[in-house]
Amino acid sequence: MVLTRRFRLTVAYEGTAYGGWQVQEGVATVQGVLERAAEDVNGEPTRILGAGRTDAGTHARGQVALFPTGRDLAAHRVPRALGAYLPEDVVVTAAVEVGEEFHPVRDAIARHYRYTLKQALHDDPFDRRFVHRIATPLDLRAMALAAAHFPGRRDFAPFQNEGSPRRETVRTLQRLDLAVEGDYIHIDITADGFLYGMARNLAGTLMRVGQGLLDPAAIPAALAACDRSLGGPTLPAGGLCLMEVRYPPTPGSIPGGNS
Amino acid sequence: MVLTRRFRLTVAYEGTAYGGWQVQEGVATVQGVLERAAEDVNGEPTRILGAGRTDAGTHARGQVALFPTGRDLAAHRVPRALGAYLPEDVVVTAAVEVGEEFHPVRDAIARHYRYTLKQALHDDPFDRRFVHRIATPLDLRAMALAAAHFPGRRDFAPFQNEGSPRRETVRTLQRLDLAVEGDYIHIDITADGFLYGMARNLAGTLMRVGQGLLDPAAIPAALAACDRSLGGPTLPAGGLCLMEVRYPPTPGSIPGGNS
Repeated sequence: MVLTRRFRLTVAYEGTAYGGWQVQEGVATVQGVLERAAEDVNGEPTRILGAGRTDAGTHARGQVALFPTGRDLAAHRVPRALGAYLPEDVVVTAAVEVGEEFHPVRDAIARHYRYTLKQALHDDPFDRRFVHRIATPLDLRAMALAAAHFPGRRDFAPFQNEGSPRRETVRTLQRLDLAVEGDYIHIDITADGFLYGMARNLAGTLMRVGQGLLDPAAIPAALAACDRSLGGPTLPAGGLCLMEVRYPPTPGSIPGGNS
Repeated sequence: MVLTRRFRLTVAYEGTAYGGWQVQEGVATVQGVLERAAEDVNGEPTRILGAGRTDAGTHARGQVALFPTGRDLAAHRVPRALGAYLPEDVVVTAAVEVGEEFHPVRDAIARHYRYTLKQALHDDPFDRRFVHRIATPLDLRAMALAAAHFPGRRDFAPFQNEGSPRRETVRTLQRLDLAVEGDYIHIDITADGFLYGMARNLAGTLMRVGQGLLDPAAIPAALAACDRSLGGPTLPAGGLCLMEVRYPPTPGSIPGGNS
């Protein structure tokens, strides 16, 4: 089969059971289960490219992936066609047909991650997989003051974990916002790209501010000096979710409808 | 150890991994894990009585259980003392010391169950364990009209499943309300007692109304005639949650504080 058609998928998943997005030998990964489903639909091995390499245990509501196929499928049927072969914790929520020039990594202009803290005395069996719980109250005003210092084009090396270092550590952080919803504090981070561990380290830095361990007024100078003590702690992966990957309007895309 | 002190526990759990509340041979149950934790705290086998026997896969936010102990524990320390021996999906959220006369089943005056339907085209990996998804839109107005006919003292035999039949099938349904929250439709059912399957059958009956398969105007006569065709379908257990068990103010309770 010639894989002549290409669909841009929106994918939601609970990352708890997976060793992250990217295919690894001997580990269940989200890319792995999508590639198996794609192979079941296409009848041949199929590579699925994703826009963001989420870490082990990290979730997604709006991961984007490219699904090539030779099948004669209308876009609105693609989610179900793949869904028939996917486990319950990975769901294709939309598909749009795109042209040959579309590349999910290279064409992305922004990625939006959300880290969710919860202020509560006890774990809650219903959200324990999706939040990082803090028993002590956080100073939200100080966190908001701190957050305001981060947006801009700067060197995020202090927020990069060891393991998968990038040589080029300058990124443009477009937004860093707090949204409070009952006991939940959502930290919304949008950037043109993320270094390894960056989202969880930024959330950890804001948490330290909220705990009174870091003065928001000290942040501008530390950022300017690229002070390594600014980063982290790296918060657990379960609180993190890839919410959206943004693309420019694609004039080359074939109108295919959403599902 | 003499089990001289008695704590009324509030317990939240995700029921997915359990064969229901009640201890059964060879099956993991919520009562079973609580009794093992109580044994770890007390150093001897301990029976934990619960207020509601939730079905396999059904969740709870406000199950009530009685924990007897000989340990010298302040009420606010009880959740952590038991929590140290509990799995992540069962959490004791509060404990109040009660007198000898308190009985969690006999003294309960009302139980509130919530069944959650979701109107959505695709499963959502984040709430799939807690809702029953319906792809077609439901007629909420018809469902609200239907719900208004149910409250009162009546024979709920049409809503009882086979398996654990009760001879006395008259119950007082205190409230049956719909609450819409985005894509979610919560069906809140409060009664002095529930027959086996009753909450899921009532939710199924309202769903049928919402789908246009049952006319709300036909319900009063069917209820009066105790028409067996009125009940069900029995919706899946994962959409059901025991929200609260209510007791009269207990003059015999020892002020022990909450946690």
